[in-house]
Amino acid sequence: MAVQTDAPTTPSAASPASPASAVDLGPAAGLSCRECGERFPLGPVFACEQCFGPLEVAYDLPAGDPEKLRERIESGPANIWRYAPLLPVPADVADKPNLNPGWTPLVKADNLARELGVTGGLYVKDDSGNPTHSFKDRVVAQALEAARAFGFTTLSCSSTGNLAGAVGAAAARAGFRSCVFIPHDLEQGKVVMAAVYGGDLVGIEGTYDDVNRFCSELIGDPLGEGWGFVNVNLRPYYAEGSKTLAYEICEQLGWRLPDQLVVPIASGSQLTKIDKGLQELIRLGLVEDKPYKIFGAQAEGCSPVSAAFKAGHDVVRPQKPNTIAKSLAIGNPADGPYVLDIARRTGGAVEDVTDEQVVDAIKLLARTEGIFAETAGGVTVGVTRKLIENGLLDPSLTTVVLNTGDGLKTLDAVAPTTGPTATIRPSLDAFRDAGLAN
Amino acid sequence: MAVQTDAPTTPSAASPASPASAVDLGPAAGLSCRECGERFPLGPVFACEQCFGPLEVAYDLPAGDPEKLRERIESGPANIWRYAPLLPVPADVADKPNLNPGWTPLVKADNLARELGVTGGLYVKDDSGNPTHSFKDRVVAQALEAARAFGFTTLSCSSTGNLAGAVGAAAARAGFRSCVFIPHDLEQGKVVMAAVYGGDLVGIEGTYDDVNRFCSELIGDPLGEGWGFVNVNLRPYYAEGSKTLAYEICEQLGWRLPDQLVVPIASGSQLTKIDKGLQELIRLGLVEDKPYKIFGAQAEGCSPVSAAFKAGHDVVRPQKPNTIAKSLAIGNPADGPYVLDIARRTGGAVEDVTDEQVVDAIKLLARTEGIFAETAGGVTVGVTRKLIENGLLDPSLTTVVLNTGDGLKTLDAVAPTTGPTATIRPSLDAFRDAGLAN
Repeated sequence: MAVQTDAPTTPSAASPASPASAVDLGPAAGLSCRECGERFPLGPVFACEQCFGPLEVAYDLPAGDPEKLRERIESGPANIWRYAPLLPVPADVADKPNLNPGWTPLVKADNLARELGVTGGLYVKDDSGNPTHSFKDRVVAQALEAARAFGFTTLSCSSTGNLAGAVGAAAARAGFRSCVFIPHDLEQGKVVMAAVYGGDLVGIEGTYDDVNRFCSELIGDPLGEGWGFVNVNLRPYYAEGSKTLAYEICEQLGWRLPDQLVVPIASGSQLTKIDKGLQELIRLGLVEDKPYKIFGAQAEGCSPVSAAFKAGHDVVRPQKPNTIAKSLAIGNPADGPYVLDIARRTGGAVEDVTDEQVVDAIKLLARTEGIFAETAGGVTVGVTRKLIENGLLDPSLTTVVLNTGDGLKTLDAVAPTTGPTATIRPSLDAFRDAGLAN
Repeated sequence: MAVQTDAPTTPSAASPASPASAVDLGPAAGLSCRECGERFPLGPVFACEQCFGPLEVAYDLPAGDPEKLRERIESGPANIWRYAPLLPVPADVADKPNLNPGWTPLVKADNLARELGVTGGLYVKDDSGNPTHSFKDRVVAQALEAARAFGFTTLSCSSTGNLAGAVGAAAARAGFRSCVFIPHDLEQGKVVMAAVYGGDLVGIEGTYDDVNRFCSELIGDPLGEGWGFVNVNLRPYYAEGSKTLAYEICEQLGWRLPDQLVVPIASGSQLTKIDKGLQELIRLGLVEDKPYKIFGAQAEGCSPVSAAFKAGHDVVRPQKPNTIAKSLAIGNPADGPYVLDIARRTGGAVEDVTDEQVVDAIKLLARTEGIFAETAGGVTVGVTRKLIENGLLDPSLTTVVLNTGDGLKTLDAVAPTTGPTATIRPSLDAFRDAGLAN
């Protein structure tokens, strides 16, 4: 049985939509089915009534002078709300209580570039500085605004830890109740991070799959009425948050598309939304249209998309995850086929690395750039190295690698192999003997 | 015996300065003694040759139109280097490899304000988003630029954890060697955070006092030649990093002084430098001159400055720390007398809270604003509450409370009292019985 992280096991048909006649979500004009194209009004639904395909937000994007739009964005706040005109949020979103994530550094990684032999410019988009230290804050911020628009008063999710904290924190700040579901046997550190924001945290006696199944039941039951599940009935809005990574990268490059991006794959949603964001920037004239390649990165212990890519398949065969990169451990990724399509269409690829290579890459990034990444960041850096070695990524081109989370959250990955150089008595003689003086 | 954290036990006389004739540290014109006023050229020295008083950076600050300076700052990068004209760094500092901390959110804390009864506007300056998730990145960034200017090639410090990571990360990015000294029996998590950046990490068999004594010996020995100890021989530059907190707070308030600030006290340096920063902004005409009050916050288990304040003393009697707020646990704070002076001069106060109140305050901030603070943040929020209760802090005035670090770093403080609301079987009946539905 496939285990999924922070995502429903399978999309199910639309839950009853609350009346959404007066919903103001800015440029969001409705929902459309990724499979059959059917349109639906904005509402807390996530699967097509016709074909059960996933729904996504469709926009009436601002037309007009790109230069004016660029100026408007540049004069906006130093967070994701600078892109409010391109997101499913009301125009005054920045005035509402939210955690305001984003506008994280795009680090020019010259030391890492030297180690990897990249000559065309290497950048790390470092999302560890977000409020709860992962990119999840971006997506939860969108889901929160949708929840507000739909009149929900409780924010919820199933989670293995990171998402629980992001939801709890956002709900606390915005004055929502939160009730979050986790497997009962999570590590204490993750439980603390999820519980400290004071919402309800419910341990479910079972696996993460059991938690997801329970949440799906709850959505259809009166017990869950008025609840916004960020990664289920609010998923179309939630997912759009990943577009902001694309916007920020291009703006931080001086309104320029990178040549190559290396993006981690969990459900695959992030990668598809980054592609969507880049396409929007082109369409709006905010960046010059030119080819770019998107590369997907997985851990070998959960590499269903990479396996399908290498085998030339269009469908993704589920796997049972077994990797230290737990935030990417979705064995049956909902957006897998779309990822394959984007990687092939743009001339990218999907690759995977072993847990040992993940740890090596975390340390490589830390010692070259002073960035301590979560295991997901080890996956993207490790895959970048592998893609260069096997000739799929061109080191002479501008390349952006995503780090989507903070190393403090996955200390266990590096702890066994990270320690003091030496332990000595407090004396100059002992220090001299240790051979560490210049 | 007093234990000190991230600070030398006692200032000692100047170590031999390396030739600093061509040193370019921007507006820094020299060093001056806080006690006798004696001036010295810029160099890696930290104590006055005349009176052994602490040295601090003296400036030739930019004269001229405040509006132009404001514009120059506002068009600068979204990090501390926007204030390069006011810091001991070269004008082109933003182009050099550094971790580029700062420009962290000033969060309007309306929920917390309601709980505390603050009506005049309550803000949390949240420094947890810095690269290594504490304000230490600000001070280390300054020390690094000084080290570069003085031709040092190794960056070092004594630390109980946080500073070690900040130094290791900054050194990695800037291409310096690092060699950092910690007590040998630190918790594994802190060791990992200090070691992961790949520099040398040396465990010293002894207490933190022993580590400090050893570092003082090393500075005077040829073994330590070419080494910049951020919190010893680079301390005058290092300390200036805290000024950026004052600059950011005022700029984020719309170039306005807050009425009241609540600042944690470890060595006391941060509080004194915030006052220095505010005074500079007034002198430069960047903010309107008006009274402000600075309040110092300590944990009861290490409250030498609070004790002296309450007793009306001018000197601080050392204490042996015993508190969960380890990042503030300096029993013999070097800047204690200056803190007393500033608190009294501005009409502020120094107050302390128990460890239990610290934990309560961490949870209060988390559940009201979605900010998970380090124990030091629990100290400032707890002290704010206490100061309101005892009438020393006026709730009708604009108040800024500092959170200087991230809760992920001190999980142990809240872990024993933070957990799931309920643990249930994955069934709707079980959920109904738990009484958590709307």
